[in-house]
Amino acid sequence: MAPSYKLTYFDGRGLGETSRFLFKYGGIDFEDVRIKKEEWPQWKEKFAFGQLPVLEHEGKQVGQSIAIARYLAKKVKLAGNDDWENLEIDAIVDTINDLRLKLVPIFYEQDEAKKKALIEVASKETLPYYLPRLEAVVKKNNGHFALGRLTWADFYFATISRVFLHSFTGSDALADYPNLKASRQKVNEIPAIKKWIETRPD
Amino acid sequence: MAPSYKLTYFDGRGLGETSRFLFKYGGIDFEDVRIKKEEWPQWKEKFAFGQLPVLEHEGKQVGQSIAIARYLAKKVKLAGNDDWENLEIDAIVDTINDLRLKLVPIFYEQDEAKKKALIEVASKETLPYYLPRLEAVVKKNNGHFALGRLTWADFYFATISRVFLHSFTGSDALADYPNLKASRQKVNEIPAIKKWIETRPD
Repeated sequence: MAPSYKLTYFDGRGLGETSRFLFKYGGIDFEDVRIKKEEWPQWKEKFAFGQLPVLEHEGKQVGQSIAIARYLAKKVKLAGNDDWENLEIDAIVDTINDLRLKLVPIFYEQDEAKKKALIEVASKETLPYYLPRLEAVVKKNNGHFALGRLTWADFYFATISRVFLHSFTGSDALADYPNLKASRQKVNEIPAIKKWIETRPD
Repeated sequence: MAPSYKLTYFDGRGLGETSRFLFKYGGIDFEDVRIKKEEWPQWKEKFAFGQLPVLEHEGKQVGQSIAIARYLAKKVKLAGNDDWENLEIDAIVDTINDLRLKLVPIFYEQDEAKKKALIEVASKETLPYYLPRLEAVVKKNNGHFALGRLTWADFYFATISRVFLHSFTGSDALADYPNLKASRQKVNEIPAIKKWIETRPD
């Protein structure tokens, strides 16, 4: 039987990997559709806002990476147990996303001098503002980003931090933040995730 | 008895108004704390990431405007009836937020020539990309942003669109989009919201 879920994203990790981790964690079969950059123009108009990832299920199609991850987290029991718990998870996820959005322009900047200037701001202002605060959150939460236990906020950081902290600044921005590193490591060592990391497309 | 909810934001509408609308819609009493810009430095460190709005309830404190709005929407029955419905709401809210984030730099740009250039991009590229697509979503959803009925996605657009579409571009960006305008109008005419609009601080 064909999987009931189809996740379409580019042929990379980026904003699609959080949901792939959640599918794997929950043992939910899904079609992992990957669109090559050169084929994207002919696909773009098929999606309402011309963006990926997109999740398809029972004939319906919906976008937005964090919204999809939140939905999947409920299916695989990595969400909160009540509305306030979900609020706490959502808030830290959006805060991590704020940090990501502040770093994203580095990735798109083509001019080398401007890119260097953006990396300078990231290294001297943005990361020193966010990382100690995130580190304190994880320390307080027993090694997790929310609720003192494993939630999809940990999955979000584990998948997104690799993308934005390493590839943009070129150094291990987490070196001085043992709780953040350990949190990511803990997710990566979950057997189903470990197996996925070993076998996923490069 | 003191209200069990306290919402702290700056002395303006901005990212706090969606939650204020939701409180008013649901008839939930709340303490509407407004911090003046000049007093902000002495407050900033009281909040984990130095950002507002912040919601306080039963001794707990949490930030992030969209996360707070999602939580309140559940309390006042403006959320989905199942996980997929909530995913559809969340996705369109995040898409509206994407548009907002593309326009926000106009607001912060101090250099008049640069600001004019950003407004040009907004008027010729960003708004013509997003607004027809959002208009089509609302048309398809019976005058709403999701699920063919009133949800907090409508509240989000009604409160946020005023902030970012008018004050940034200086013209009525929604003039050619009757469904978007009508959706906002519909929220503003809900009796509890109408009363709030008439009595809220300027």
